[in-house]
Amino acid sequence: MLIRLSYDIQFELPATVAMAAMLNVHPSRAADLLEPDVVLTEPWLDVTSYIDSFGNRCVRFVAPQGPLRLHGSTLLLDSGQPDEVNWGARERAVGDLPNECLSFLLNSRYCEVDRFSNIAVELFGEVPAGWGRVQAICNWVHNHVAFNYQHARPTKTALDVYTERVGVCRDFQHLAITFCRAMNIPARYATGYLGDFGVPVRLPMDFSAWFEVYLDNRWWAFDARNNVPRIGRILMATGRDASDVAVTTSFGQADLKYFFVQTEEENAGS
Amino acid sequence: MLIRLSYDIQFELPATVAMAAMLNVHPSRAADLLEPDVVLTEPWLDVTSYIDSFGNRCVRFVAPQGPLRLHGSTLLLDSGQPDEVNWGARERAVGDLPNECLSFLLNSRYCEVDRFSNIAVELFGEVPAGWGRVQAICNWVHNHVAFNYQHARPTKTALDVYTERVGVCRDFQHLAITFCRAMNIPARYATGYLGDFGVPVRLPMDFSAWFEVYLDNRWWAFDARNNVPRIGRILMATGRDASDVAVTTSFGQADLKYFFVQTEEENAGS
Amino acid sequence: MLIRLSYDIQFELPATVAMAAMLNVHPSRAADLLEPDVVLTEPWLDVTSYIDSFGNRCVRFVAPQGPLRLHGSTLLLDSGQPDEVNWGARERAVGDLPNECLSFLLNSRYCEVDRFSNIAVELFGEVPAGWGRVQAICNWVHNHVAFNYQHARPTKTALDVYTERVGVCRDFQHLAITFCRAMNIPARYATGYLGDFGVPVRLPMDFSAWFEVYLDNRWWAFDARNNVPRIGRILMATGRDASDVAVTTSFGQADLKYFFVQTEEENAGS
Amino acid sequence: MLIRLSYDIQFELPATVAMAAMLNVHPSRAADLLEPDVVLTEPWLDVTSYIDSFGNRCVRFVAPQGPLRLHGSTLLLDSGQPDEVNWGARERAVGDLPNECLSFLLNSRYCEVDRFSNIAVELFGEVPAGWGRVQAICNWVHNHVAFNYQHARPTKTALDVYTERVGVCRDFQHLAITFCRAMNIPARYATGYLGDFGVPVRLPMDFSAWFEVYLDNRWWAFDARNNVPRIGRILMATGRDASDVAVTTSFGQADLKYFFVQTEEENAGS
Repeated sequence: MLIRLSYDIQFELPATVAMAAMLNVHPSRAADLLEPDVVLTEPWLDVTSYIDSFGNRCVRFVAPQGPLRLHGSTLLLDSGQPDEVNWGARERAVGDLPNECLSFLLNSRYCEVDRFSNIAVELFGEVPAGWGRVQAICNWVHNHVAFNYQHARPTKTALDVYTERVGVCRDFQHLAITFCRAMNIPARYATGYLGDFGVPVRLPMDFSAWFEVYLDNRWWAFDARNNVPRIGRILMATGRDASDVAVTTSFGQADLKYFFVQTEEENAGS
Repeated sequence: MLIRLSYDIQFELPATVAMAAMLNVHPSRAADLLEPDVVLTEPWLDVTSYIDSFGNRCVRFVAPQGPLRLHGSTLLLDSGQPDEVNWGARERAVGDLPNECLSFLLNSRYCEVDRFSNIAVELFGEVPAGWGRVQAICNWVHNHVAFNYQHARPTKTALDVYTERVGVCRDFQHLAITFCRAMNIPARYATGYLGDFGVPVRLPMDFSAWFEVYLDNRWWAFDARNNVPRIGRILMATGRDASDVAVTTSFGQADLKYFFVQTEEENAGS
Repeated sequence: MLIRLSYDIQFELPATVAMAAMLNVHPSRAADLLEPDVVLTEPWLDVTSYIDSFGNRCVRFVAPQGPLRLHGSTLLLDSGQPDEVNWGARERAVGDLPNECLSFLLNSRYCEVDRFSNIAVELFGEVPAGWGRVQAICNWVHNHVAFNYQHARPTKTALDVYTERVGVCRDFQHLAITFCRAMNIPARYATGYLGDFGVPVRLPMDFSAWFEVYLDNRWWAFDARNNVPRIGRILMATGRDASDVAVTTSFGQADLKYFFVQTEEENAGS
Repeated sequence: MLIRLSYDIQFELPATVAMAAMLNVHPSRAADLLEPDVVLTEPWLDVTSYIDSFGNRCVRFVAPQGPLRLHGSTLLLDSGQPDEVNWGARERAVGDLPNECLSFLLNSRYCEVDRFSNIAVELFGEVPAGWGRVQAICNWVHNHVAFNYQHARPTKTALDVYTERVGVCRDFQHLAITFCRAMNIPARYATGYLGDFGVPVRLPMDFSAWFEVYLDNRWWAFDARNNVPRIGRILMATGRDASDVAVTTSFGQADLKYFFVQTEEENAGS
């Protein structure tokens, strides 16, 4: 299956500002790219590309006062298979986890693991360990939190989601991640493209958030917001929570004027 | 100047537990070590040593039920000079910072940069940029926060410190770090040994926290708690905040029974 | 000046629910009423009217499943004068305040006075006491907080307003009230009608929030949101904060479907 | 049973300060007093006594710089019976509650009812309504929160108690009160003397906190901290939470130097 990925994001900048962006496909998907994956800017800017400490491809640049457009389009080969499900995948004892998993058991800005240690055990301590426990966490979040764009706010933490029970896609994942970590299951935040292949209703697209959990000997995608296996999840970045993987970060004022993102199946013969 | 570093930390473990510890000297000081820097355990355990994503040396192990002792001693060559002071050091525009500095401008668990963006500008926006601004931040924190061990708590964030105005050494640094980041100055949390060389009153020792700021083209040590240049600051670990560099992290219950840490000058001839 | 006050509020109730409402004019304005001030319900309900512990007139009733309409209209005689301004009004020492003022110096749900004691003194400690200090507080809030309906949320406290710097009218007042109390100036939350008499741009109306401060020997109206004297402020209720004086409180689910409130000058001869 | 109530509280005041205190027995117990119940001050001060909006007897005064002592002793006739238990007491539908109960269903400073509406229903929604539900709430709090003086802090709210699971006596009651209100059961905070009559271990005394719940047609004492019926609970004050009924409130600095409170059975013949 060929998937065309496109985005077009436009800002108005009241003054020169430094920005960083995570608009590239994740290095783990680089081999699937059939076209270059370049972040284009208008006006043309000197864009530096680098890999951050989480292994994500990032760009950074300094943009002058005035309008700024970030856009790109690439073509990617995808299996076309839905998210893998493996009810046999087991939790690893913390002592058996790879070193690089340990930091995904700890607190982060939006995931106050230290405030959930008792709550998580009360809710999920009786559920058998492994894939089923992570799925139980996703089910709980999916069933107890309502989706509502009007209640989004950038400072909302897992604890806020747990008490307010309403949020957007990142909020669902933050709460599920925090529950996982409180149960000593490594969990990390993921962003990327999520098309609506095979989903009946088409929605206006945004980048999507999900999360990954380490079971057996690898990371697996879970999505407490949608909570069904989906086709066409294209990873862009992973981190401890949304704070690590903002699509764009501006170190100064940048007013968003236009936002478009799309994934579409492309006919191989076209 | 030769400094002997020693620690002895003892726990009682009600059950087998996985632990991680940052008890080694930072790799940047490895060349100054005159003796091996080994974390010893009683009972003997299979200890794995590794470097985390921040570049710190860590150990991890699984300890059985019962008493656990972590101890070590090493000898280190130190300049004996106080913390460097450089009033000429300049802030770098965000666009000129090295890639690896950018994440030290963002939110972290105990440093809610997003909630301080206005407060920081109101307090420090008029102070000329550079070393003097960081020093102004340290002065403010040092003068407005009272030290009190009885008001310590593990969930205290920079915002709590700003409203409660009392804390322990990590709390002072978290607030100062958050102010710096809100002013677009990269700041990271640091832990290590801090002796009392040249300080009149000797106190019972603990590991110490300070922070580092990126000015000109390097990181510099600042200490909002003590707020005077000190001799014998031996770095162990840096991270985004205390959550990244806990001396010990136990993934399960571990009851602290004894804690001893010491740095002493050792006579070269002895 | 004759002012006609009208409101029409409609809910859909999924089940029988008990409700309380503060839709009457405040008892202190009862003598100005030229028509009865009755809360009408559709369907007809057994409505109990009572005075709460703050001296506000309230109604309560139990409404059945289905649509619920609360409406009313009354005519009130008003001086037509703008809010009083008295730069000579003095703060009273706490020891000289009437007993009933003391509770308006304390913490309440949305006004965390205990977290602002230092911040308030730093911002307003140098301002001469009295009317000017309260005005300085209003100016600060007015100038540092942006009005935006999209950032409203029911759990937002004064500390949230102080860090986020955006809110709706109740948020402005909560922050100003908290600053006043932290300076030992009694301050209470007020709700009522606020017409746009003499204000150039007409906006769709809502009930309004302002606050009252005790200076000399009485309460005075201040409004950190609008921050200019206004004509036609008709008090409905006062309390410690918005939690005490909700226009409607439902002890169960009640989905708001329609909201209309209006104040209009009525020609005496009509 | 005759109970002698005594207290002796001493402050050092760096400057003249206004203070309020709730050191009298509650008016509902006035008929049981066998000796006058007077708050004595050293130095002698002009003390005003009044009843606050919750019906509590309060005193207020202005104290000069220097040492301040508040003390008193009185004798009270008590039934000597333990707290009443009535498993048949029923919850009242909100629509049937007396007017004055309604405000004890709402948010207050330390009781964020709005953040617990879902959590409370999840934990207690299946428990049959009435006395048993309140007792289930007390059991939950008693069993899930650990008592520890070292984790006390004045800003701790019900949500903090719920996540941290440790606190002092007021914290236990705040969480239980918040659960009750979230279930539409009126609950108010209570302070007073609680002797150790019939309790095996004698502890150094403090004033105690408990809470009251409205069932059937009256308020009943519950105590999520001790969670067993106790003898000799002598009410001093009730309010929405600890913020309303502080034993002493100083509107300026007052450093506590000594604190003593005692209740002892007095031999009628002595």
